[in-house]
Amino acid sequence: MIKVELAALAELNASAQAVMRQARAQVLAKMGTKMTVAEKTGRKDLVTNVDRSNEHFLVQQIRRLDPAAQILAEEGLGDEVKSMAGHVWIVDPIDGTMNFVHQRNHFAIMMAFYIDGEPTLGYIYDVMGDKLYAGGPAVGVTLNAEPLAAPLDVSLADGLFGASAPLLIHDRFNMQQVVSTSLGPRIVGSAGIQISQVLAGELVGYLSYLRPWDFAAGRVLGESLGLVISQVDGTPVNMLSSGAVLIATKSAQRAILAIVK
Amino acid sequence: MIKVELAALAELNASAQAVMRQARAQVLAKMGTKMTVAEKTGRKDLVTNVDRSNEHFLVQQIRRLDPAAQILAEEGLGDEVKSMAGHVWIVDPIDGTMNFVHQRNHFAIMMAFYIDGEPTLGYIYDVMGDKLYAGGPAVGVTLNAEPLAAPLDVSLADGLFGASAPLLIHDRFNMQQVVSTSLGPRIVGSAGIQISQVLAGELVGYLSYLRPWDFAAGRVLGESLGLVISQVDGTPVNMLSSGAVLIATKSAQRAILAIVK
Repeated sequence: MIKVELAALAELNASAQAVMRQARAQVLAKMGTKMTVAEKTGRKDLVTNVDRSNEHFLVQQIRRLDPAAQILAEEGLGDEVKSMAGHVWIVDPIDGTMNFVHQRNHFAIMMAFYIDGEPTLGYIYDVMGDKLYAGGPAVGVTLNAEPLAAPLDVSLADGLFGASAPLLIHDRFNMQQVVSTSLGPRIVGSAGIQISQVLAGELVGYLSYLRPWDFAAGRVLGESLGLVISQVDGTPVNMLSSGAVLIATKSAQRAILAIVK
Repeated sequence: MIKVELAALAELNASAQAVMRQARAQVLAKMGTKMTVAEKTGRKDLVTNVDRSNEHFLVQQIRRLDPAAQILAEEGLGDEVKSMAGHVWIVDPIDGTMNFVHQRNHFAIMMAFYIDGEPTLGYIYDVMGDKLYAGGPAVGVTLNAEPLAAPLDVSLADGLFGASAPLLIHDRFNMQQVVSTSLGPRIVGSAGIQISQVLAGELVGYLSYLRPWDFAAGRVLGESLGLVISQVDGTPVNMLSSGAVLIATKSAQRAILAIVK
């Protein structure tokens, strides 16, 4: 097992935040130029030259900070990661590419660091809102370098719920009852933004079909703040596979797990 | 008919923007103190002391600027307006009160001015985003005092769609097909914020059951920017009654009206 001392971790955390700020500046600069947009699996699944160039930058910077680590990155410029043993970084260069292309707003850059499968550091950058959520269980969680208070343990009935459009429309997992038990659904179209809203206490939970890079950073930050993350059936998430993932307050998770089918 | 000359209108526009900025500052200050929250028609329909105090302030300021006008205001502190003849102001002191209370984000202050039923001036203030959309057909539309370019006439299939949760879940007006024709739905829970996203080109349209104060400012600003607003069956909106209201690009409106049932 490769351990990292707290001082080294705090230094890594500072360096990683600097990388995130540099990544944001580069993405903003590229938004002023002509972007190339391509479809991945269909017209609702996009990738741009900025996703690729930003992933290239992040992978390069992680190699510099942590040369022996493995890197799992959305656009495939990292490694083929088959195990969470040792140091693993998980990267989403642009989360919410649809919003990035069609709204030029409401998208995030995300990065997470796990040691032997343990959530260690996480970063969610709401680019246009200029809000960087950063940290982990050992170093604490900050929003733009200021300590972030843990959200209150609000119940499902007393909060707004972050929904995914397909799950809501097709009533997967009894989602419509989850939503009607809550004060109402909110749909932003970026896991990073919606998870950051759970961190900020704006939503009591968020449920969506997610891939590892969609929830890796949110898991680190959420667990550090007393939130819970699980698969929709309550079992632990697997950092190397996709599925319906729930991040919520403890109280909202209990209520949601009792409703989902 | 009470006419207003362009110079007088420009002056009124400047004064109204100053009122909006003052209202925002007061609302922000009150968010730092303990708020009183009450239910209106149920647990999902809230009003706070800040809705009331801000409406009181706005009504007072409008009386100062335009003493002979009638004022239609959400919380009932204005007049009982029965006709759109003459000068009519329409006020929503906090649009998205649920978000205001439970997110402390994603809510708007709105105000609109009609002369003999003609859209003349409109204001949508995204309070936490600090974005003031202001103006009208004669004076032009600004975002934070800078001219705002009209959004492109993007088609439904090429854009994101602002949905209302009840209409989407219950598939009213064939809303699920509208959404699946678009690139996806977005739900924010504030008509003011979602209409401002249509103005900004982030959404190609927004359909929801709305009351006059929910769409009065959006109509002025939207029509000034070449957007179209109508009832869901394509007939003109009535400024003194509620209904399912659509604001969209011309092209998206055509596609949506062909889908709705």
